[in-house]
Amino acid sequence: MLFQHALPSWCDGTVRAALLRFLLAVCDPASPDFLPPARRIAVFAHDGTLACEFPLPVNALFIGTRLEQLAAQRPSLRDRDPFSAFLREDLPRIHGLGWRGILQLGLVLHAGLALEQFAERTGAWLATAHHPWLARRVLACVYQPQLELLALLRLQDFSVFIVTANESGFVRALAAAAYGIPPHHVIGTCARMKLERVAGGADLVKLAEEERVNEREEKVRAIAMHIGQRPVLAFGNADRDLAMLHYVAAGCGPRLAMLLRHDDGVREFAYDHGFSLNPLDEALERAEEIGLQVVSMRQDWHSVFPATSV
Amino acid sequence: MLFQHALPSWCDGTVRAALLRFLLAVCDPASPDFLPPARRIAVFAHDGTLACEFPLPVNALFIGTRLEQLAAQRPSLRDRDPFSAFLREDLPRIHGLGWRGILQLGLVLHAGLALEQFAERTGAWLATAHHPWLARRVLACVYQPQLELLALLRLQDFSVFIVTANESGFVRALAAAAYGIPPHHVIGTCARMKLERVAGGADLVKLAEEERVNEREEKVRAIAMHIGQRPVLAFGNADRDLAMLHYVAAGCGPRLAMLLRHDDGVREFAYDHGFSLNPLDEALERAEEIGLQVVSMRQDWHSVFPATSV
Repeated sequence: MLFQHALPSWCDGTVRAALLRFLLAVCDPASPDFLPPARRIAVFAHDGTLACEFPLPVNALFIGTRLEQLAAQRPSLRDRDPFSAFLREDLPRIHGLGWRGILQLGLVLHAGLALEQFAERTGAWLATAHHPWLARRVLACVYQPQLELLALLRLQDFSVFIVTANESGFVRALAAAAYGIPPHHVIGTCARMKLERVAGGADLVKLAEEERVNEREEKVRAIAMHIGQRPVLAFGNADRDLAMLHYVAAGCGPRLAMLLRHDDGVREFAYDHGFSLNPLDEALERAEEIGLQVVSMRQDWHSVFPATSV
Repeated sequence: MLFQHALPSWCDGTVRAALLRFLLAVCDPASPDFLPPARRIAVFAHDGTLACEFPLPVNALFIGTRLEQLAAQRPSLRDRDPFSAFLREDLPRIHGLGWRGILQLGLVLHAGLALEQFAERTGAWLATAHHPWLARRVLACVYQPQLELLALLRLQDFSVFIVTANESGFVRALAAAAYGIPPHHVIGTCARMKLERVAGGADLVKLAEEERVNEREEKVRAIAMHIGQRPVLAFGNADRDLAMLHYVAAGCGPRLAMLLRHDDGVREFAYDHGFSLNPLDEALERAEEIGLQVVSMRQDWHSVFPATSV
């Protein structure tokens, strides 16, 4: 059988079998469900689907570092909301800001930077940043089974997109470094941009407000705007992804929509139902009705993170 | 010299030389201006840059056909504005609607269609439609020198995007058929989309209003949103493209921004300065100051359209 040695970090079982069956169905020219490469579109959520998002998504760690740098120059920031939540490492208060609050803080902190400057600053941080609890670099807090799946999809001529509620610019820097996914395959929440005349030219500069908050039904509209056709494979991990998973599951022809559960308190974190920044309730309840393939980190993955020395 | 047999429909001269010099500079690993493939981003306007837009852009011809079908069922449309302009083939009145008026008419006509249905309807029309004056299929009204340039860019690992003021869905169908450019490499004016629950699933349905009108500075913002980095090559033909051309010309490192003039009344149409749907005035005036390479259809192209029997 084709693909029999593929996805070594995925345990033998119904989930791996469903994945391989789907790939065989759409990639084998003799299959009645064969799709030409132009139709092989896959979309992945980011935080919690491709990379660890607990106790904070990676961009929140980036925001914390940036605030520390600013507070070193202006100590009064340590007593001001909402900065103090980060500067005192007060996790419940950070969670209390909510996803949107954290995102907006990031936009405020990086407002005024040109596109290129932001990419540089993010890249420099990613090159050395570590996860606070996992004793590994944040670039190594991506999921090994997903790295294998991304590689297999590309080998089979899939176009793979990240469709994320996180900020596009940040995830683009991360995606290039961690997954080899190019910036134009990342569709995320956007800062409004302003075209500013500068000496000898024009720069695009980030503003402190959102142009689009890319979650729930907005993810589906963003797929229409950026990709222009319905994907055949979708992978998410939260209620925020439900509309996208449903949209893909409801297409005609071969399709696969997968939902990752965070139920592994030993190798990662077990926080299903309990994570205020990215709740998973409705999607799990409706998984069977909609036809989602539920993936258990604990049962379906041999390993969670890449073997690494850093 | 590398590329010496490339671009056979481009006349020997400063323009072809500038193109080949640029490609050599960014693609030759020994060049000080070498760029890795991930940085090789090229953007093209569509109507008038890749395909004939005179006397009407291709989607306006599509709108005309659709209106004829509707008028066959409801003859009263022939007396109603703005439909009557198309149904009586009254070119000055169609031009009088303006680019935006024509675009909005298209949105109204196709409102309520799911993404997939619109792609099907457009594809079916493109398969047989002819240009009204050129005695060739609209799919053969693309520019041969540009087909050669697109092919050369792809061969050199460029990611090529169409950044168009025309409607994304329409240009996506055309781009797939005419240039082999995939839907997610077309960034255009968008209809707002609505996610509708239908039996057993969910469809994205086009609404009659614009989500984004992709012209002038909006083209630059759309590049940031979709591509996430500054392109190194841009090609346009109108004032609508000036901001994008300026943005690319103003980048650091190697770059090339080109402006096509419609000055060939024999093989195509000579309408510089005089086309109300897509004026070219300011861009031509500022070309030298900004550093645009001006391309003359008459002087720089050996042939304009592909040799074809249809």
